[in-house]
Amino acid sequence: MIRVGIVGGTGYTGVELLRLLVLHSEVEVAVVTSRSDAGIRVDAVYPSLRGYIDVIFTAPDIKILAQCDVVFFATPNGTAMQMAEQLLERGIKVIDLSADFRLKDAKQWGHWYGMEHTCPDLIGEAVYGLPEVNREAIKKAQLIACPGCYPTAVQLGFLPLIENKLIDVKHLIADVKSGVSGAGRKAELATLMSETGESFKAYAVNGHRHLPEITQGLAYVAGETVGLTFVPHLTPMIRGIHATLYGQLASVWLGAKISLDEIQLLYEQRYQDEMFVDILPLGSIPDTRNVRGSNNCQISIFQPQGQQTIVVLSVIDNLVKGAAGQAIQNMNLMCGLKEDLSLKVIALYP
Amino acid sequence: MIRVGIVGGTGYTGVELLRLLVLHSEVEVAVVTSRSDAGIRVDAVYPSLRGYIDVIFTAPDIKILAQCDVVFFATPNGTAMQMAEQLLERGIKVIDLSADFRLKDAKQWGHWYGMEHTCPDLIGEAVYGLPEVNREAIKKAQLIACPGCYPTAVQLGFLPLIENKLIDVKHLIADVKSGVSGAGRKAELATLMSETGESFKAYAVNGHRHLPEITQGLAYVAGETVGLTFVPHLTPMIRGIHATLYGQLASVWLGAKISLDEIQLLYEQRYQDEMFVDILPLGSIPDTRNVRGSNNCQISIFQPQGQQTIVVLSVIDNLVKGAAGQAIQNMNLMCGLKEDLSLKVIALYP
Amino acid sequence: MIRVGIVGGTGYTGVELLRLLVLHSEVEVAVVTSRSDAGIRVDAVYPSLRGYIDVIFTAPDIKILAQCDVVFFATPNGTAMQMAEQLLERGIKVIDLSADFRLKDAKQWGHWYGMEHTCPDLIGEAVYGLPEVNREAIKKAQLIACPGCYPTAVQLGFLPLIENKLIDVKHLIADVKSGVSGAGRKAELATLMSETGESFKAYAVNGHRHLPEITQGLAYVAGETVGLTFVPHLTPMIRGIHATLYGQLASVWLGAKISLDEIQLLYEQRYQDEMFVDILPLGSIPDTRNVRGSNNCQISIFQPQGQQTIVVLSVIDNLVKGAAGQAIQNMNLMCGLKEDLSLKVIALYP
Amino acid sequence: MIRVGIVGGTGYTGVELLRLLVLHSEVEVAVVTSRSDAGIRVDAVYPSLRGYIDVIFTAPDIKILAQCDVVFFATPNGTAMQMAEQLLERGIKVIDLSADFRLKDAKQWGHWYGMEHTCPDLIGEAVYGLPEVNREAIKKAQLIACPGCYPTAVQLGFLPLIENKLIDVKHLIADVKSGVSGAGRKAELATLMSETGESFKAYAVNGHRHLPEITQGLAYVAGETVGLTFVPHLTPMIRGIHATLYGQLASVWLGAKISLDEIQLLYEQRYQDEMFVDILPLGSIPDTRNVRGSNNCQISIFQPQGQQTIVVLSVIDNLVKGAAGQAIQNMNLMCGLKEDLSLKVIALYP
Repeated sequence: MIRVGIVGGTGYTGVELLRLLVLHSEVEVAVVTSRSDAGIRVDAVYPSLRGYIDVIFTAPDIKILAQCDVVFFATPNGTAMQMAEQLLERGIKVIDLSADFRLKDAKQWGHWYGMEHTCPDLIGEAVYGLPEVNREAIKKAQLIACPGCYPTAVQLGFLPLIENKLIDVKHLIADVKSGVSGAGRKAELATLMSETGESFKAYAVNGHRHLPEITQGLAYVAGETVGLTFVPHLTPMIRGIHATLYGQLASVWLGAKISLDEIQLLYEQRYQDEMFVDILPLGSIPDTRNVRGSNNCQISIFQPQGQQTIVVLSVIDNLVKGAAGQAIQNMNLMCGLKEDLSLKVIALYP
Repeated sequence: MIRVGIVGGTGYTGVELLRLLVLHSEVEVAVVTSRSDAGIRVDAVYPSLRGYIDVIFTAPDIKILAQCDVVFFATPNGTAMQMAEQLLERGIKVIDLSADFRLKDAKQWGHWYGMEHTCPDLIGEAVYGLPEVNREAIKKAQLIACPGCYPTAVQLGFLPLIENKLIDVKHLIADVKSGVSGAGRKAELATLMSETGESFKAYAVNGHRHLPEITQGLAYVAGETVGLTFVPHLTPMIRGIHATLYGQLASVWLGAKISLDEIQLLYEQRYQDEMFVDILPLGSIPDTRNVRGSNNCQISIFQPQGQQTIVVLSVIDNLVKGAAGQAIQNMNLMCGLKEDLSLKVIALYP
Repeated sequence: MIRVGIVGGTGYTGVELLRLLVLHSEVEVAVVTSRSDAGIRVDAVYPSLRGYIDVIFTAPDIKILAQCDVVFFATPNGTAMQMAEQLLERGIKVIDLSADFRLKDAKQWGHWYGMEHTCPDLIGEAVYGLPEVNREAIKKAQLIACPGCYPTAVQLGFLPLIENKLIDVKHLIADVKSGVSGAGRKAELATLMSETGESFKAYAVNGHRHLPEITQGLAYVAGETVGLTFVPHLTPMIRGIHATLYGQLASVWLGAKISLDEIQLLYEQRYQDEMFVDILPLGSIPDTRNVRGSNNCQISIFQPQGQQTIVVLSVIDNLVKGAAGQAIQNMNLMCGLKEDLSLKVIALYP
Repeated sequence: MIRVGIVGGTGYTGVELLRLLVLHSEVEVAVVTSRSDAGIRVDAVYPSLRGYIDVIFTAPDIKILAQCDVVFFATPNGTAMQMAEQLLERGIKVIDLSADFRLKDAKQWGHWYGMEHTCPDLIGEAVYGLPEVNREAIKKAQLIACPGCYPTAVQLGFLPLIENKLIDVKHLIADVKSGVSGAGRKAELATLMSETGESFKAYAVNGHRHLPEITQGLAYVAGETVGLTFVPHLTPMIRGIHATLYGQLASVWLGAKISLDEIQLLYEQRYQDEMFVDILPLGSIPDTRNVRGSNNCQISIFQPQGQQTIVVLSVIDNLVKGAAGQAIQNMNLMCGLKEDLSLKVIALYP
């Protein structure tokens, strides 16, 4: 059995890791830390887990975590970079669900996250945990930087278009909508039911922290810098991300008149061996509820009125494929397990 | 492998059976019927099931269903009673999620359901599928009448009080709140988002069809007729039932001054071997989200201000413990399988 | 024009006062206080008010408030009792939407609100602002204690039964459901969208602060102490309270066999001159959306199965008839204005 | 008093007309038609209107409608074109909230609406009822084609950019999100609470009926054809439209380096005399709740990262400025009344 520790077990990504891991056939959840709830049973805070876990929250402590084989960080930004090195030194695999190791440029990271990076040496070692791009590197990694929720939905949606140089990468648009659980489990006015229910709004229009992460990832596959307008929105539901992506067919292709059928085929081929990316039949619409609670990404491609603009719809559950599920997918890969262990969870519909 | 058929696979209880059964290690879903969607792939109607099922909807046909070992009816009331006999004759186990065989009195059934019962002979043979009351009978049954969602939450909440003759059974009150999925997957004005969202109302105050089912069940354990005021309400969410139950401590006990601690202990003992009924610690509050998507019933007991009125809070997911999950629990029992096969599903929180 | 001040203008009852008062033909909103937002335009915090108000939040200051004719307190409990006396001395009418002056017993108040009452002398002077009971006293009052939201819905629903001695007042049950705006505009985990959305729960089952207020009000009209089991619940919507009230027909009446038609008539007569209490036709169901945003209370009466238990359904908008609307109704009465000025607002449906 | 008739009074735009018109100081609602509910009191179907209207639904009848001065059509598409001519002949003003007279090209109309236009002669006479563009024509009109909800939000958001030739009109993108009341009050599976709650999806990506209406309107002000990718989405709330609009700064301007401050000023100047269009201060975000129930459109402009893409956020309540409110605004103009009569309704927050 793989002994697993979770640092920051009281947030939504922490409890989601628990929901999936307590049923993982090869895993024992050994340590769950929480400063605020130390000493309390995990299932007293999360009664949904009653009967599945006997662990008591402990304060974070390297010596206790050192008994684990794998440690997940489900912490606010800035915590993993303080503790990762000590764990890695002890041969423990580290999977960070926060943003600490996502950006390759420490200075850029500091700019967007408002603090200095305390552990820039490890950035180079960290593997960006998007299995659909980095599977082989993930298998050999000791430190994984799990992608953010928006970056997962946007990158999976754009990848085949960019890899095949079908669209103008200087003028990409990502209009993305998220459920409010993406904001985390924090006492804040802005995410009260009375503030977010029955209302829809954009936010961070001038620049969201996930922007540099997305452009870094897209530039990596494009082989050149990309230009992206990224507008995140808050939609009155708990789970789910819906990315509506707009790309302009590159002029060379316009001349060559690639058809939507051909684009559809490219998408299907690109993801045919990916168990968690599902290209819907032409004309189908993905609905976030169809991936709610599951590790799936469902994608559809459209070319409205046969014009130059390609529209890609990409949906995930922000807490699963956008966080905890993808983290476990990475763990399975790192540990040589079947990639879908504990991830064969079907979306909750209705 | 047990070959399973589902009649009426396009409703919410049908798709919920599928969500749970396609991951059941001892089951093969062989037939799923739907008059309206015959010829269409099941996962075209329910994209949440893509990758898990290859079946195509077929029109209901006894000969095709006869190839199954177990047939579930997830149909509107009045359908199972037309087909059950032909299946039972062929040795097929029948589990009815509709109301056709729930009431022991065919005349009373006709009164509440607005049609004559076409198959009264089978009523006596049918076992009421509440495992917490009827486990041994269920194991030997060929025909199961699965309890309704309200009756499940209310009976599990009241049982220990009534079995121990602690309360006055002539003046029971059940104030129960349900998510809108309980109304089924039907095109109706009353359950539109615009009609039910952001609003709360009671309905069927003068008499709901589940009233005679609940009183029948409670009278069975009480050994006498019971008096129940049952007021169902619609709450603006999709899944979940919350029963708030009020009982007056019987005068004999008032004299004997049974304490809340003792009542709590009686509840814990009553359900200590029940894997799907969970008595919360004294003072804890059950929240429907903590059972959403799971087969659990969570129960708390209160005695406000130490007075005569006992308040029991009992929550389930109406589509799982209140329908599909309980039906599978019954199937597991009937087939000699472990009772929780495919039912170790953790609630989706948040 | 009546010059109005609002202390605590950044909470939900404060902004609701503003929504209604800025269109009041006889009122000028002169002062709106907020410690946290002092110096900021009111409509910068509440863009829904853009174009309707030019006021800037100021820190609370008796001298500034002294320029008003009427001061509303839309503050947390414990604030109004610090400032009311100084305003009353200056001849300013005070309308308190918090709980400070609702209970006639200062010791009881201290017990339920967890602090000592600093101004017990004024309690006797304060008039409980339920116009349907106290209209004449309100007209002459200088200090109004506005009823809580639960107490408004429960008292209006029970009053005719109790005034006519139709039910056993020792065994009343009030099962009440509230939208989350009732919890106020405070950064708290418990009322996040992710915590309250798609879920239903009870709370404060062992004793809610509104319990002594309700029993005080019911005892006043009953002429004797009453026994009430009061269970509040949180329902996943923003506005609205739905009270489901249960009373046992008193034995004398059981003998006399009062009919439901007669009870209906008593309700209609009791409220025939009340412009904000609306008895629905027999058999109709009140729905909270039908009073959302309005100052109305809609009530229905049932006698399920013709038995001893009378069920009353009473709905209000917790922020209007349960708070700001009722406060303005009181102000209109105190100032000799038409009682419905600025309150002819129709519910927002859908 | 202006005598008003409403044809199709049982839909959401019909009841919204009633909510606003029953408080209109110059209007008497004389006739409300409904085939299905003829003979029933309006307030029996809509209890939110109890106390405000005494009218009984009647079957639609030209002779009865002929007693009105103004007739609103709040009907499904295809009804107004059958009846408008007979009313206009009698000198009655007609305001159509459906799509019958929105498109100037009858053939195109037939293509998008799936039926032949039965009254093409009147199309030319109809004035498109967007007061911010057509105020003077509206004042003199006898027949108004009220804009659709999406077209209202999109056009008001794009107008200043296009009128000032700031953006490339061949590559416009409108990513628009709507609450479900936009789908109307019809018994349909797709808009059930259980289908739309807690989920987000796009729809009609290949072409929505409002596309030709929007391009017609934008082309009119652009003086040339425009290219628009329009993707509508359904968001889990009842009321509200949020348009996120993307335009590329035209190259001439790129050279001239127009600043965001200058664009902001152009927007403010464009709408300075418009009482229902509100340009928010730079950096502010519009939230649909801030216009819920009101006739306002709130707009913000952004230029993320100072790049070529201008992002405009435009929000309305689809049932008010997107339907009933705008219709009444048109009526006020046609009848020489103050434009905001009965429309000074403040948004319901929270």
